[in-house]
Amino acid sequence: MCELLGMECNVPTDIVFSFSGLALRGGHKGPHADGWGLALYEGKAARTFLEPSAASNSPLASYVKNNPIKTLLAIAHVRKKTRGRVALENTHPFVRELWGRHFVFAHNGTIKGVRKFEIGRFQPIGDTDSEIAFCALLHELEKRFSSYPKSPRRLWSAVAKAGAELGAKGTFNFLLGDGAHLFARCATKLHYIVRKAPFRQATLADDDLSVNFASVTTPRDRVAVIATAPLTRDETWTAGSPGNMWVFRGGSLRATVPS
Amino acid sequence: MCELLGMECNVPTDIVFSFSGLALRGGHKGPHADGWGLALYEGKAARTFLEPSAASNSPLASYVKNNPIKTLLAIAHVRKKTRGRVALENTHPFVRELWGRHFVFAHNGTIKGVRKFEIGRFQPIGDTDSEIAFCALLHELEKRFSSYPKSPRRLWSAVAKAGAELGAKGTFNFLLGDGAHLFARCATKLHYIVRKAPFRQATLADDDLSVNFASVTTPRDRVAVIATAPLTRDETWTAGSPGNMWVFRGGSLRATVPS
Repeated sequence: MCELLGMECNVPTDIVFSFSGLALRGGHKGPHADGWGLALYEGKAARTFLEPSAASNSPLASYVKNNPIKTLLAIAHVRKKTRGRVALENTHPFVRELWGRHFVFAHNGTIKGVRKFEIGRFQPIGDTDSEIAFCALLHELEKRFSSYPKSPRRLWSAVAKAGAELGAKGTFNFLLGDGAHLFARCATKLHYIVRKAPFRQATLADDDLSVNFASVTTPRDRVAVIATAPLTRDETWTAGSPGNMWVFRGGSLRATVPS
Repeated sequence: MCELLGMECNVPTDIVFSFSGLALRGGHKGPHADGWGLALYEGKAARTFLEPSAASNSPLASYVKNNPIKTLLAIAHVRKKTRGRVALENTHPFVRELWGRHFVFAHNGTIKGVRKFEIGRFQPIGDTDSEIAFCALLHELEKRFSSYPKSPRRLWSAVAKAGAELGAKGTFNFLLGDGAHLFARCATKLHYIVRKAPFRQATLADDDLSVNFASVTTPRDRVAVIATAPLTRDETWTAGSPGNMWVFRGGSLRATVPS
């Protein structure tokens, strides 16, 4: 099993505070020492930092924390392997181009019999069930739409439907980014919070690190943070219901799409 | 115009010395201040460090130099934009998945009328001629082979043919990696060197930094380095002939394929 972290905002925001909390679970406070990754969008493109080793004592993870990069949309993952060896090619998040934009995907759980799903031209590079599920999901989207859908709601329901089909025989908590939306599907465990004015102080659940968001934000800022388990001890997170998929855009929850 | 750097070896090697030379040309000793990128393979997958800003004073480029990552195959690029604004999506090297492996591409030059080439399902994310040319090249390969060719020579000639077609109306110096080979096409300017025993000292052309390769290698090591302009002042580099494409594997020049 693994832990997921996503962030989606209406103004460019750095993910350092939340990523610090996640990285602690990557080998130090948690068992997820088999790799970590962080994808940060700039428009339709994402850049990705990946390491097939523990985040908690990684120099690259320290670099990311010490050199904040602001973004509207980020996806991170710490891995405890269930299927697939410890290797770069098996390290989430995975990235593929579809319709001239990067899609970024990270998964928590295990999907049985994933090889029976069609993947079309999206071939896995590694040997995780997660990457194959991502390929199958993109193949479903590409079959249904020849270009990025003009109606966002049609895309939302297509992602939810593909998620439900893949999740029917396994555990399919996932985060998916397309450069405009963050899709967050809960199979067993997922939480979110939207930070907005009036901003307050927050303290990491696994450390004494705290930040006063009032001092680093403006009143119009909205920042949605999604995580497997709540990352802070003094804020109220909303738990997901199994089978539901949240859609975030502009730092707001736009829809909860049932399976 | 831009500068290219590639490395292909028979034992995992870090690219720090050569990358340091390239990074100096990224805004400090050279005009290539509009972005830089470095892709490092581990097997069939590559991880990429990208920044749409000058390499010469980049903290991320410093991280890469201070935390050497060993690899068999690397491609780097410093950018001076000709077409396409300064943005992450326009920063080389570009990466796409084909046949279950990452292909990595960096280009020096400008291609006229590149939009008339078929790109199939490989859609550009940014607006450079380079990324479109990469899409067209991959589309040609996918049209010709349904999976990674068992005969390497058929792949070599297909890459060279696609390169010649794209390069017919422009300047198409490029580096292309597939996780096994490094393809290096010279349109106007490209150089290579193969470092092997007896190893000697080398000094960067643009700095006083030198390294004694004898102290960091074994007698069986072979390291091919390809660069737009020779990176060292005290070694003999081989210049490419316009239209020829080199194929490197195992730290050796395996073929020179004419257009």
